[in-house]
Amino acid sequence: MTLKPITPKSRVRVRRLAKRAVYDEEAILAILDEALICHVGFVDDEQPYVIPIIHGRIGTTLYFHGSQSNRMLGALSDGIEMCATATIIDGLVLARSAFHHSMNYRSVVILGRATAVLDPDEKTRALEATMERLKPGRWADARPPTDKELEQTLMVSLPIEEASAKVRSGPPADDEEDYDLPIWAGELPLSLTPSNGLVPDPRLIAGVDVPGYLQ
Amino acid sequence: MTLKPITPKSRVRVRRLAKRAVYDEEAILAILDEALICHVGFVDDEQPYVIPIIHGRIGTTLYFHGSQSNRMLGALSDGIEMCATATIIDGLVLARSAFHHSMNYRSVVILGRATAVLDPDEKTRALEATMERLKPGRWADARPPTDKELEQTLMVSLPIEEASAKVRSGPPADDEEDYDLPIWAGELPLSLTPSNGLVPDPRLIAGVDVPGYLQ
Repeated sequence: MTLKPITPKSRVRVRRLAKRAVYDEEAILAILDEALICHVGFVDDEQPYVIPIIHGRIGTTLYFHGSQSNRMLGALSDGIEMCATATIIDGLVLARSAFHHSMNYRSVVILGRATAVLDPDEKTRALEATMERLKPGRWADARPPTDKELEQTLMVSLPIEEASAKVRSGPPADDEEDYDLPIWAGELPLSLTPSNGLVPDPRLIAGVDVPGYLQ
Repeated sequence: MTLKPITPKSRVRVRRLAKRAVYDEEAILAILDEALICHVGFVDDEQPYVIPIIHGRIGTTLYFHGSQSNRMLGALSDGIEMCATATIIDGLVLARSAFHHSMNYRSVVILGRATAVLDPDEKTRALEATMERLKPGRWADARPPTDKELEQTLMVSLPIEEASAKVRSGPPADDEEDYDLPIWAGELPLSLTPSNGLVPDPRLIAGVDVPGYLQ
């Protein structure tokens, strides 16, 4: 569970605003666990593409899955260079000057090459890790995947080795001469949270209570 | 304000789950306006990178800005191929089967090449559009950018021409034989909303009230 040391020469060195850079493994894994999705970048015919996708984590391995006909996963399973970026937005930063407006956020960038996951047991464990990260308790409740469903699932793994995080938090950083301006400044914290209770499936059969892990 | 027609041969054609694909200009622009950030993909030395960045929109042009030393913006301003993806997470989709779990979301993918924005007036208008999109009313309140700050701002524009959206909404889609299972199924809506009130800057001078657009 040790990340490859990130040296100043690494491709993931944060070049700008180095004070926001974090290379600590625990911080990187915590951001990956909290972010619901990654944005994965890959190149096809010299064109970069960025596609959102749910991830799962076991140790220092990330997993992405989808249909066997998923174009991105098919390309990634060939071991091409990829990038996976997870971003959590923590709020707007309202400075006195337009120039110093910003956003509080935590993000992780991982570079590497993926490997196709073929072993059904590893696939199952990774699906469990993915679901339990998003909603702990759900895996034990849901109807488990069948062998056929596992075969229909294309999955790739990416080692969390060449990785870095970038974090901004706290109040705005205005120019010293602007602090006397009579302009409201501060933070507007934001978070991705349940907004509207639960929406039961219209075809839910009678007598099924909302499980505790969803309440 | 007309998007280039998206043909089935286009590189942004959504190949998988075409029922989720949207090529309607109004829908694409609405997603871009609601998403707080884009994840921008570019290639450097054969390695794809994906970096989160705030965007602004005027008509069918997207704007990205940062420091003159921002590595990604420097690369993009050379007109290399890029991808900008904006994703809004709308909730978890809890199916009866593990296999059919999903997420409700709206995302836009734009392919193209950026152009450096050099004209200070266009820069100013784009900064205003960026800020007003994130917090309407703020631009008129903040201390405007100086000529020097505009010079220190590296900005690129990207035409919203080769673009598509993908949307998933509504209840889970379980296999027909699973609908009788006594497993709770439905949606857990999520949204990115103010979570903790406003946090005033510790150096805010006395007597500055919270402006109406933040209340």
